[in-house]
Amino acid sequence: MIRITLISFLGPKGTFTHQAANILGDELIPYCTIPAVMESVFNEESSMGVVPIENSIEGPVGITLDSLAHNFDLKIFKEIIIPINQNLIVNPETKLEDIKDVYSHSQAISQCSEFISKNNLQPHYSVSTARAAKDIIGDKTKAAIGNANVVDLYDLEILKSNIQDTDNNKTRFVVLSKKQHKPTGRDKTSIIFSIYEDRPGSLYKILGIFEKDNVNLTKIESRPSKEALGKYLFFVDFYGHVDDELTQNILSEIKNNTYFFKILGSYPEF
Amino acid sequence: MIRITLISFLGPKGTFTHQAANILGDELIPYCTIPAVMESVFNEESSMGVVPIENSIEGPVGITLDSLAHNFDLKIFKEIIIPINQNLIVNPETKLEDIKDVYSHSQAISQCSEFISKNNLQPHYSVSTARAAKDIIGDKTKAAIGNANVVDLYDLEILKSNIQDTDNNKTRFVVLSKKQHKPTGRDKTSIIFSIYEDRPGSLYKILGIFEKDNVNLTKIESRPSKEALGKYLFFVDFYGHVDDELTQNILSEIKNNTYFFKILGSYPEF
Repeated sequence: MIRITLISFLGPKGTFTHQAANILGDELIPYCTIPAVMESVFNEESSMGVVPIENSIEGPVGITLDSLAHNFDLKIFKEIIIPINQNLIVNPETKLEDIKDVYSHSQAISQCSEFISKNNLQPHYSVSTARAAKDIIGDKTKAAIGNANVVDLYDLEILKSNIQDTDNNKTRFVVLSKKQHKPTGRDKTSIIFSIYEDRPGSLYKILGIFEKDNVNLTKIESRPSKEALGKYLFFVDFYGHVDDELTQNILSEIKNNTYFFKILGSYPEF
Repeated sequence: MIRITLISFLGPKGTFTHQAANILGDELIPYCTIPAVMESVFNEESSMGVVPIENSIEGPVGITLDSLAHNFDLKIFKEIIIPINQNLIVNPETKLEDIKDVYSHSQAISQCSEFISKNNLQPHYSVSTARAAKDIIGDKTKAAIGNANVVDLYDLEILKSNIQDTDNNKTRFVVLSKKQHKPTGRDKTSIIFSIYEDRPGSLYKILGIFEKDNVNLTKIESRPSKEALGKYLFFVDFYGHVDDELTQNILSEIKNNTYFFKILGSYPEF
């Protein structure tokens, strides 16, 4: 079982997820969708898989949250947070005034919307920042927005770096595995739950369970449950590990007061 | 000031937002972005503007929430909820087996992901469902996904209707105005707030304000505040009108316990 040391990530090579996966090791395999990364871990084609889960500007990555909630039983084994520096990537010897069209993933386009409108560029969506770079090769009227690592792959250049609207641009990635990480003393636990919509104050009662034990939430995020408008799944992260007695008590109390409940795992804080 | 009777909407013509705007009247002008619709209302080029705010499968429309929070002081004057039926739109005399590529807005592509993968189609993103339809004209290897209304605009045909993954596919639109709607007896109020992150249990205390008066929330949605990972704005809808005394008491108590607070308006429930 040599292949089990491989790490899968949301590709292609040269994306921000690739940069995050590099922190874990160098036996990396790109997969072209987030569910495909999860499936590779589930089928044991890889031991871990790296996917983005939220960006500080654009918010949650819906397909990651939905796939963890509904389609795959995987543990969050680690989290990785990296600053996102978006670059204007061009063919050699291109000037800013040559460029008419700019290509990138829709999240990167949104993150650079001020730069794009100030420079009168026409935005186009690509499936990834790396694919955008590949698509502009040989055409000086086109630029891509993406990770600096991509320029070496395709013989391109960076014309301008840090073109995102704000400096607080960070993405949080999760490393998924079939294994649960051991307690380290500074751990976070991620859970998903649905409240009973017909019982007023349900969310208030759930938050009261954490409040009673003075346990801090580091995240609370709502997602549509896909059942109807106004019905939500809540994704909550808090300090603690599933092996702690206090955390176990909290989890069992939440389970008793929700109609959908899933533990996504405990892992060291990044 | 004849132009003030005009209603702006997120265009182009033939989109689902166009369908929602049709409910209000027929003097409609398309604008090409959500902020442009809001600006037209703010500048009084139109009296009302229609934009999507959330979909039951794909979740919130980030640019609408962010623009209401940070960029425009507009009231939600009405809400409109319509069922979303996605259609496979093709050139005349095209068969399913002719089609290789499918074009649509990224939300529509996500909503039909099972149909797309079952039929081995290659998805491509367009800026709108209507633009996707325009882009396939004359090429039988290409199909678009979108609103049935678009076929008459471009002489296309519907090959298959209701191709979305689930039947619970609805989109909620908001009608924005500079005016506040009068109380009707069955109203909702929308607010945005940010909690003090350094005070544990802040969100719990805010929800307690509603709980105390037995006021039901119809929505609670978190969005990144754009300041840092883990900092959120909360979008909350609840029953009541800003002219009610009870609602006024609730709003002033929330204002005193949050560091960012904005009332988006009171409007009749759809």
